[in-house]
Amino acid sequence: MIVFIDGKYVEEEDAKVSVKDRGYVFADGVYEGFRAYNEKIFKYEEHKTRFQRSLDELRINYVLDNEIQEIYEGLKKANGYDTEKLFYYMHITRGQSPRAHDFPKKDTPVGMYAFLLPKEQNMQKYNEGISVCTVPDNRWARCDIKCIALTANCLANQIAIDNNCSEALFVHDGMITEGTRTNVFFVKNNEVYTHAKTNRILAGVTRNTVVQLCEENGITVHEFPLSCDKLEDIDEAFLTGTTEEITPIVQINGKKVGSGEVGNITKKLQKIFKNEVQRYCY
Amino acid sequence: MIVFIDGKYVEEEDAKVSVKDRGYVFADGVYEGFRAYNEKIFKYEEHKTRFQRSLDELRINYVLDNEIQEIYEGLKKANGYDTEKLFYYMHITRGQSPRAHDFPKKDTPVGMYAFLLPKEQNMQKYNEGISVCTVPDNRWARCDIKCIALTANCLANQIAIDNNCSEALFVHDGMITEGTRTNVFFVKNNEVYTHAKTNRILAGVTRNTVVQLCEENGITVHEFPLSCDKLEDIDEAFLTGTTEEITPIVQINGKKVGSGEVGNITKKLQKIFKNEVQRYCY
Repeated sequence: MIVFIDGKYVEEEDAKVSVKDRGYVFADGVYEGFRAYNEKIFKYEEHKTRFQRSLDELRINYVLDNEIQEIYEGLKKANGYDTEKLFYYMHITRGQSPRAHDFPKKDTPVGMYAFLLPKEQNMQKYNEGISVCTVPDNRWARCDIKCIALTANCLANQIAIDNNCSEALFVHDGMITEGTRTNVFFVKNNEVYTHAKTNRILAGVTRNTVVQLCEENGITVHEFPLSCDKLEDIDEAFLTGTTEEITPIVQINGKKVGSGEVGNITKKLQKIFKNEVQRYCY
Repeated sequence: MIVFIDGKYVEEEDAKVSVKDRGYVFADGVYEGFRAYNEKIFKYEEHKTRFQRSLDELRINYVLDNEIQEIYEGLKKANGYDTEKLFYYMHITRGQSPRAHDFPKKDTPVGMYAFLLPKEQNMQKYNEGISVCTVPDNRWARCDIKCIALTANCLANQIAIDNNCSEALFVHDGMITEGTRTNVFFVKNNEVYTHAKTNRILAGVTRNTVVQLCEENGITVHEFPLSCDKLEDIDEAFLTGTTEEITPIVQINGKKVGSGEVGNITKKLQKIFKNEVQRYCY
């Protein structure tokens, strides 16, 4: 696979970064994950806006121009992809400096890394649903920034794996916030609940799209978190994510969600979302 | 400068790491900072024990042997240092894998990076004291792990710089926890206060040494945090850190600490600490 690193397209095995890159010693950078369908980046503007916001919130002095599209095209060409579904990753760090917490000099070039790869959805999970578990939300207070400091996410994800689950849901102050790399929705009496856009969650592009699609399709949405002690009362649950789209949750902490089958609102939203992808990319 | 990267001693400008290193994409690693006086690593065993604990808490499957000493000697020789005071940095990551939150296969070699450089203490700050400011503690819930995810620390440190301060003190739930790269102590009526060893602070080697030296020298220590609203009542304050040793704080958020001069307990502890360095390294 050919990847992009600091201005060059190189084989992944040869793609190296200086030990002085602040991404390597301080997690001092932000990233985006994009989905391309039919060779077009889905919700490009929304991702770009969020990427710029992450840069701004981390005070990385860099204004995005057209590099997201350009590097995407460069990687597609370099790798000769003609796959329908691609996953595209890009990250930007505060660049290189001697190891000191202080920001480097103003004219220090940022570090930039990107890769693109074919990625199919897991259709079994998409159709039959997944099991998840809850974990304490040990993350920092700025989960709204898509920062590369993902240690807590990796640890929580591994707890999910250890428990034969596909994802872990974070619990902060007794409330479900989101997954380690997804947002989470609950359904009760045909109404939908998801955590509000605060500092405790990343405002997922898929999440925001689903909220909008609910509103457009007459499904009531409450942007309010679910309390952990109400997990047993819900009828349906699902994750949203760039790759996951809308993936049903049928079990939480070993207990069935509702009937244990994929719910009707979830199925309806899966269909509505697929139509949105079709409308946007095809 | 010659640094150590993944088994090799190379010029810093040539020291590179794979983009697949989990330190670069996930902050999935831990580090230590050591001080060497008179060519001997101060409190080597304490640092090694903490380093191993950080590895264990992050579930990085690696048992430290003698590499801290060996790489220290290697770097000292490679750089031809004969300086009295050195700063030694080492970090270990979970190694290389395709970018996925899941831990890589069990036999994946860890990543290892280290550098050594001459570093003098800032004697003006040491003698005359520094100004600090308080900032919200936005860090994750495992500040007891010396993890390379230091984004919140970098941002807080920059707020200090923007306010002409030498360090920022984190405030969590209204209580002072620690600095961005130091621990903090307060003095009231000749008794010393510092945050207890909980998940909210890193149990600094210098911090622990100072607590022990207080006890050995008849100075009462309370391991209990200071409430932010009591900042104006204190008589003295100081930071502790591997490089900083014991550095007096004479101003917090633009207000004098006590008389605004370096306090007597602080001066006494500086002297006691210097004696401990002398005893250990000379």
